[in-house]
Amino acid sequence: MNIGLIGNRGHLEYVFDGLNRRPLVKLAAIASGSDEVEAAGLLAYCQMEGHEPQLFSDYRQLLDDAGIDLVCIAGPFELHTPMCLEAFARGMHVFCEKPVSITLAELADLKAGFQASGRVQLSAMMGLRYDPAFYTAWELVRNGAIGEVRLLNAQKSYKLGWRPAYYRQRQTYGGTIPWVGSHAIDWIYWFSQAPFETVRASQSRLANRGNDSLEVSALCQFKLAGEIQASVSIDYLRPETAPTHGDDRLRVAGTAGVVEVRQGKVLLIQEAGAGEQEIQPRCERQVFSDFIDQVEGRQAALLSADDVFTVTEACLLAQLSADEEREMVFQVNTPGPTSLLTGRNRRARPGEKPSGSGG
Amino acid sequence: MNIGLIGNRGHLEYVFDGLNRRPLVKLAAIASGSDEVEAAGLLAYCQMEGHEPQLFSDYRQLLDDAGIDLVCIAGPFELHTPMCLEAFARGMHVFCEKPVSITLAELADLKAGFQASGRVQLSAMMGLRYDPAFYTAWELVRNGAIGEVRLLNAQKSYKLGWRPAYYRQRQTYGGTIPWVGSHAIDWIYWFSQAPFETVRASQSRLANRGNDSLEVSALCQFKLAGEIQASVSIDYLRPETAPTHGDDRLRVAGTAGVVEVRQGKVLLIQEAGAGEQEIQPRCERQVFSDFIDQVEGRQAALLSADDVFTVTEACLLAQLSADEEREMVFQVNTPGPTSLLTGRNRRARPGEKPSGSGG
Repeated sequence: MNIGLIGNRGHLEYVFDGLNRRPLVKLAAIASGSDEVEAAGLLAYCQMEGHEPQLFSDYRQLLDDAGIDLVCIAGPFELHTPMCLEAFARGMHVFCEKPVSITLAELADLKAGFQASGRVQLSAMMGLRYDPAFYTAWELVRNGAIGEVRLLNAQKSYKLGWRPAYYRQRQTYGGTIPWVGSHAIDWIYWFSQAPFETVRASQSRLANRGNDSLEVSALCQFKLAGEIQASVSIDYLRPETAPTHGDDRLRVAGTAGVVEVRQGKVLLIQEAGAGEQEIQPRCERQVFSDFIDQVEGRQAALLSADDVFTVTEACLLAQLSADEEREMVFQVNTPGPTSLLTGRNRRARPGEKPSGSGG
Repeated sequence: MNIGLIGNRGHLEYVFDGLNRRPLVKLAAIASGSDEVEAAGLLAYCQMEGHEPQLFSDYRQLLDDAGIDLVCIAGPFELHTPMCLEAFARGMHVFCEKPVSITLAELADLKAGFQASGRVQLSAMMGLRYDPAFYTAWELVRNGAIGEVRLLNAQKSYKLGWRPAYYRQRQTYGGTIPWVGSHAIDWIYWFSQAPFETVRASQSRLANRGNDSLEVSALCQFKLAGEIQASVSIDYLRPETAPTHGDDRLRVAGTAGVVEVRQGKVLLIQEAGAGEQEIQPRCERQVFSDFIDQVEGRQAALLSADDVFTVTEACLLAQLSADEEREMVFQVNTPGPTSLLTGRNRRARPGEKPSGSGG
């Protein structure tokens, strides 16, 4: 399989780590998506990682001429949706930096384009599902270790540091709730497996150290089906002196126990257990390699296209709630891509080979 | 000073611990507030703690005849407000279990009665302000260790265990947000020192193990003045096998650092520091002894009557938000007790001797 890569504003390490596991997949072509400086940086990055792709000056030309089956997209953020749509229109699978859309209008276009495109596959760079601690906690919950999920508290706290100019405007950044919070909102959906019902969020730009419209702090409060409640705390207030860039946390309280991820550790207390235990974090899977497995029909990835759409919508509705200072209600009973598209959006079954997986 | 004690449904250990520090204060009289069984239990408890109070069968008779200056009130919860009002009407100081009111109508009556009563003092059993870890964290914040407060996340998680019948009905219990959450909501107000502006809360009774209307999980999201944001997570989902009854936590993120209380530890990361440090928790003060100091004019307690009213209102508005599933706005510019009452509700200054402190 030949793949292409557009943009240098995201978590490209996911792509390179995945390629290291897949010697038969070739990074054939790249394009910057923005300017020549970014293109040169992207090429240098690829070469450093041991790849010799062809550099295209225009990403559409790459899609037309590079002979690729799958494209990875990583910015500019405001072009994610147009780039995905260009790829879908050519029948290509897409592995896109999150959020795949930075407005609800874009997201609607993206869904429509995906539905119209045939049997392409879509995934997003939700790499934290594959973080050993979060994956291990999720497996515990999925295997019933805490009973039924009742309450989730998620935290994303980052160092602000120095950031490029595109972080400073909503049009190019997308906002802190979708950019930083998407991981936390994804955990909530992934762990609870319940539809979102309502969200009330708030955010503040105060103390953003000259970063124009960048929001420094945000809170989201979700209600999910079955009276499941979830809170998300997001900030760029982590001091530069902290030992790690991010302070990612998740606490999931269920009817028979509580599991927690904190400082890379997995902590479990079970009703039927013997006090708090620390569980060894472990995840053999890798986000991009997993997506290639799905595209090639071997096994479903952890993240489905439906998940991408649902979590992106949750992020953008949360942000709209904060922008407009009012509660947002998720639409229910709206036929999603799955019901419209004869099951294309469900996860592929092992042994089931979707079309478009040659190359 | 002679004091009285009514009820046996609250944190009476605060009273007894305080009395151990004040040999000149005598527990002279008790009454149960409910039935003879509770009265007998209360008397036995007092005797076990080394006190020999006179037992009154009616708490009003105690207030009339026992010759006390200060009364401690600890249930039934639904009688806190009437009991406080009876005490105020007799010019007595009150140290009451929280919440002092379980409805907003009661709270309005309580404020009015307090205003009308003269120079009595009121405090509540917010003992967690005096917990060494929380007190130490608060002193750090007050001394500027994290700059300006921007974001607070508080958690109260309790074991459900077996609970008396009065926990099972809102009329006698008051609800989980005020009962369990009041501590967390108090921390938010105490650490931020900012007026509440809005709250959106949610709650669920699912999985309450047969406890009728008792809510097992709740979330509150507050906005305070200055775009300060605060989240509170409350639950009874802590497994019985956990090492402690409660899992109390607070994380306060500021413009120059983050301070946290977790598992009795105080953790601090400062922008200008050297990574995460653990600070030794320490608090010499005690909640009831502190209130006696205030009553006797020596030094202000950590908790003022204004704080009691503000935090109780925040709890009850949060609960109303959850009950009615809509956001609540705090009234601003409403003259509070302080402005109406020539400063009676402000903390007493050292050396200032309020009236009614003899005995």
